Amino acid sequence: MVVVLEKNITDKQFENIVKHLEDFGFAVHKSTGVEQVVLGAIGVKPDFDIRKVKILDGVAEVYKITEPFKLASRSFRKENTEIKIKDVVVGGNEVVVMAGPCAVESEEQIFTIAEIVSKTGAKILRGGAFKPRTSPYSFQGLGEEGLKMLRKAGDKFNLLVITEVMESNQIPLIEEYTDIFQIGARNMQNFGLLRDLGKTSKPIMLKRGLAATVEDWLMSAEYILSNGNKEVMLCERGIRTFETYTRNTFDLSAIPVVHKRSHLPVVADPSHATGLRDKVLPMARAAIAAGADALMVEVHHDPEKALSDGPQSLLPDQFEELMKQVKLIAEVIGRRIN
Amino acid sequence: MVVVLEKNITDKQFENIVKHLEDFGFAVHKSTGVEQVVLGAIGVKPDFDIRKVKILDGVAEVYKITEPFKLASRSFRKENTEIKIKDVVVGGNEVVVMAGPCAVESEEQIFTIAEIVSKTGAKILRGGAFKPRTSPYSFQGLGEEGLKMLRKAGDKFNLLVITEVMESNQIPLIEEYTDIFQIGARNMQNFGLLRDLGKTSKPIMLKRGLAATVEDWLMSAEYILSNGNKEVMLCERGIRTFETYTRNTFDLSAIPVVHKRSHLPVVADPSHATGLRDKVLPMARAAIAAGADALMVEVHHDPEKALSDGPQSLLPDQFEELMKQVKLIAEVIGRRIN
Amino acid sequence: MVVVLEKNITDKQFENIVKHLEDFGFAVHKSTGVEQVVLGAIGVKPDFDIRKVKILDGVAEVYKITEPFKLASRSFRKENTEIKIKDVVVGGNEVVVMAGPCAVESEEQIFTIAEIVSKTGAKILRGGAFKPRTSPYSFQGLGEEGLKMLRKAGDKFNLLVITEVMESNQIPLIEEYTDIFQIGARNMQNFGLLRDLGKTSKPIMLKRGLAATVEDWLMSAEYILSNGNKEVMLCERGIRTFETYTRNTFDLSAIPVVHKRSHLPVVADPSHATGLRDKVLPMARAAIAAGADALMVEVHHDPEKALSDGPQSLLPDQFEELMKQVKLIAEVIGRRIN
Amino acid sequence: MVVVLEKNITDKQFENIVKHLEDFGFAVHKSTGVEQVVLGAIGVKPDFDIRKVKILDGVAEVYKITEPFKLASRSFRKENTEIKIKDVVVGGNEVVVMAGPCAVESEEQIFTIAEIVSKTGAKILRGGAFKPRTSPYSFQGLGEEGLKMLRKAGDKFNLLVITEVMESNQIPLIEEYTDIFQIGARNMQNFGLLRDLGKTSKPIMLKRGLAATVEDWLMSAEYILSNGNKEVMLCERGIRTFETYTRNTFDLSAIPVVHKRSHLPVVADPSHATGLRDKVLPMARAAIAAGADALMVEVHHDPEKALSDGPQSLLPDQFEELMKQVKLIAEVIGRRIN
Repeated sequence: MVVVLEKNITDKQFENIVKHLEDFGFAVHKSTGVEQVVLGAIGVKPDFDIRKVKILDGVAEVYKITEPFKLASRSFRKENTEIKIKDVVVGGNEVVVMAGPCAVESEEQIFTIAEIVSKTGAKILRGGAFKPRTSPYSFQGLGEEGLKMLRKAGDKFNLLVITEVMESNQIPLIEEYTDIFQIGARNMQNFGLLRDLGKTSKPIMLKRGLAATVEDWLMSAEYILSNGNKEVMLCERGIRTFETYTRNTFDLSAIPVVHKRSHLPVVADPSHATGLRDKVLPMARAAIAAGADALMVEVHHDPEKALSDGPQSLLPDQFEELMKQVKLIAEVIGRRIN
Repeated sequence: MVVVLEKNITDKQFENIVKHLEDFGFAVHKSTGVEQVVLGAIGVKPDFDIRKVKILDGVAEVYKITEPFKLASRSFRKENTEIKIKDVVVGGNEVVVMAGPCAVESEEQIFTIAEIVSKTGAKILRGGAFKPRTSPYSFQGLGEEGLKMLRKAGDKFNLLVITEVMESNQIPLIEEYTDIFQIGARNMQNFGLLRDLGKTSKPIMLKRGLAATVEDWLMSAEYILSNGNKEVMLCERGIRTFETYTRNTFDLSAIPVVHKRSHLPVVADPSHATGLRDKVLPMARAAIAAGADALMVEVHHDPEKALSDGPQSLLPDQFEELMKQVKLIAEVIGRRIN
Repeated sequence: MVVVLEKNITDKQFENIVKHLEDFGFAVHKSTGVEQVVLGAIGVKPDFDIRKVKILDGVAEVYKITEPFKLASRSFRKENTEIKIKDVVVGGNEVVVMAGPCAVESEEQIFTIAEIVSKTGAKILRGGAFKPRTSPYSFQGLGEEGLKMLRKAGDKFNLLVITEVMESNQIPLIEEYTDIFQIGARNMQNFGLLRDLGKTSKPIMLKRGLAATVEDWLMSAEYILSNGNKEVMLCERGIRTFETYTRNTFDLSAIPVVHKRSHLPVVADPSHATGLRDKVLPMARAAIAAGADALMVEVHHDPEKALSDGPQSLLPDQFEELMKQVKLIAEVIGRRIN
Repeated sequence: MVVVLEKNITDKQFENIVKHLEDFGFAVHKSTGVEQVVLGAIGVKPDFDIRKVKILDGVAEVYKITEPFKLASRSFRKENTEIKIKDVVVGGNEVVVMAGPCAVESEEQIFTIAEIVSKTGAKILRGGAFKPRTSPYSFQGLGEEGLKMLRKAGDKFNLLVITEVMESNQIPLIEEYTDIFQIGARNMQNFGLLRDLGKTSKPIMLKRGLAATVEDWLMSAEYILSNGNKEVMLCERGIRTFETYTRNTFDLSAIPVVHKRSHLPVVADPSHATGLRDKVLPMARAAIAAGADALMVEVHHDPEKALSDGPQSLLPDQFEELMKQVKLIAEVIGRRIN
């Protein structure tokens, strides 16, 4: 921590500040310049609340100099985390594609879509059985029936499956069926859920919250990691800004930013980020070009009848075209899809 | 729903759009102008996803014309909801003050603060026993011990108590001790928690999420209301914007906005909104002047030693001064405190 | 400036960093802790671009420790700046009210409104003659004719006048007629205009830009101050956020924040901040309660026919009521209006 | 315009609303549903302020159904605008690269960089002579001397040149030297400057403002177009959000959004959007993949000594690598660079 003192500080104020820092457990180093004095305060755990110092008389500004996350940081682990699930690796050279409907709606639906998805080279089937909906009156998912259908469709077409978990008490049930747990954007800071998933042994995809900074997001990953589960992938799906033409603002710069600050793989979800079908293809290409380790895309064979998020779901031939294009983009940057 | 058609639409496109609207269950009305055609589509449930129409060929724009919430809306219920808890009413003429530490830390601490708080005319004691913390390494609250201390302190000083519930499985325990359940900002869209609290019979204070529009917030209230619990108060505690000098941006305009669109009472929390002790007093005054029905303020007798949020907690004499000033402000607008 | 080094830095990297800092003209102080090394770099002008250091190999983070503005800062000048214009003082104990139409539309209109405004105790008449409009097809103001009408109305009813200047070449003309120059939010970083107004000798009201932090805003004030004009008042009028129900988000916390960081007076404009007539009264009360030094409010005797911003203009009797209420609020905090 | 009425509207309110709409010049169409009545109001100019209707008694909501811009819209002009400048076309199949230093600093500097830039296949040399700086104490550019150097360097290495114009009175001077006028983000709503540049005959690149929606941005383009200059290209350079790790948030979705709503070409500037050199390469690739018609990149042979924005400038070999990669990406989507 660095403490900048006010210019005309009294001796008494100075002594009081130093005393406080020492009481908090810091070793204090003083740097004196022409106009100002700066204190280096070193040696305390990363979650110290710097506002405790900010409010002392004579303090002009305080800066935290350690990252608040540890296990998630690149300085803790230099090599990329590669998450191996059966024969698929997320975070390696291959860019993995996850695709499927927003929600599992029927056996016919999920089998039809799984077939389309598997043909193009996607490796993971997505599909919600428990759906977080803004409105209590909207379709809330098929629950366990949906999980069963998803698993069966995945097995039949040789796809891994990923599905969302919304509450801690759903974990044992979902764990039976899924290969990867998905944590939704609105639950990114549901700390009990993070903690409980940290105690499971299946990989987790953690979506970024609508108002979460990259640092908040990595702190949430830290919750999972510190509870024992090291297989966390992060998913950028757009943040909330003043621009409302797209559903959210797709923060693609977050991909290289996370890669610099953390060793965890990053998934990009252009379907939720833009909310509009005709924006999914260009933004999927952009995500791969920016370095995403995996792509999550909504696909539906009959989106007009989809029970949720139809308007952002690709039609089968659009998805095929997307796969063609993103493969070529991946090659340009020395990676591959399939 | 209103559907604006593109200027040079073909007959085939037009028929296709009308057919879709009718299939979705709408009655369609056509308005023709010089340059454009507008369709009024009437008669469907409020959670219809308008993007289903937005993506049809020939559609220029679509507007939803019904509010997505019902039970929470002013048009559903004209009179203000008054929540009566023992002898305290939230949402009536009296402006109710809730005060206390961020977290319950010890019996001595909570008794000391409860005494200070009760003397000034505050009616409700706040204090966290389960704490949502960004870092897994931070103090997470005293749990049931904390609840017991809070209850005892409330009873001794004749104060109601409010405390946060973070997970559904904490509900039965917390219900034994608290008078009001608090839902934190990060759980505003934890839909399972909302649903489960909707089935309890104690009042609920729902904090606004960092990235929640007023509409999102009222939709979350709708989750609780539609599950049977009608005693919901909303709490404005700042939203996340580009301005970082204050912890959040206190959106005081949300107070009159909610009062227009909903019948539910609004609490204002200047401590979390600003995150800085010296901004709490002016912003508490502003909140009352803007029409808040209640105030939630953090107070600590020794904030430098507080285990969380000390820097935004008022000192006892500052809180006393605050109470003096907000009482006068309340009188100016024809209300009273105590 | 404080430079935090990476944990496993090599000697060569360390030497390179120190050399660069010295070449940039800094005196370097080293603080060594258990896990990390921090350098204090002291002695360079406030506009040094810290990213020059951020990109050096081995640097983890860099913090600027001096405020980038000087003349605008509270540390440069301890006492509040009081701006005396004839017999009105902005920034003293009295809270000054500026009111009038968005735009001057006719002699009859501005005289009618001036009379209403002067009766209630407002001291300054607002009215635009040159209007910044988002659309090139909207009413752009009456120009010099508008200025003349405004001046005449002000003189007749013993009111000072304020009007907006949009371009440097309008300065000489507007200076003839106005008492205060207004700089609009969209011109807050029109640096040429700031510089040229800095060379005039009339007071300036600088509106905050839609995406401006408090620091950006004070930097723009610094442009004016550093060119010689010391009479700058700042005007908070809402920032742009994801919440769109109100036109902007009124950041009332900015009032005490500016008062802490700067000696310049702060005006609050609830009309532009909310954009809705029925939100102006509560937010005007809140602004005074938060400590605003002046209030700017739009008033129109026939807002339905107003050529711009009618929907946010108060009716005469609403304005009268507002004046009554804000006077009482001002008294509560030991100030007065009129 | 669509006017949604409140559910329990009285006959008198209804008549009053219709009368107002007719007085404003609208033809009114009524659609009656089970629960609500909707009025279609058709036939008025695009800048009508819908709040005039929003405030009438009995009105629940109002929607504007015409885009406020006309000349800039895709419905006005179906084909893409191609801007031909000597032998370079912006907006055609070729993706054009503009590169150079943030500011022209000396003849040696601009010649050195121009040579690097021209070798790799970039077609346009950028370089500021008048610099908009947040601080009045920062380097403000070389002025006319800088313009001369830029022109000479462009001519010598067969590059077009682009440079920023900050004030209307600089137009005649800059017009002598530049091929394209650049309008900076902070001047996007400097309406006088837009109007005056609309009267020139050289192409204009209009940067998006930090808080500008796509609609605001296109409205500013409309100012230029409606004054006669049809050669406008738009430049996405990041918007301001709560995420501060990158300088701004690069809104790449704006590229396909603008392409849908307008016929004007879109340039992407990853240097200003991210503010960090090591993020420029991945985000340049992403911008091309998202469909940008041109790229603007900062390059400096000695960025540590650059007088402005050195930290976001690419080194020569980084720029060469960028050109290699973006060429391949362009080919994947059926376009070319050079």
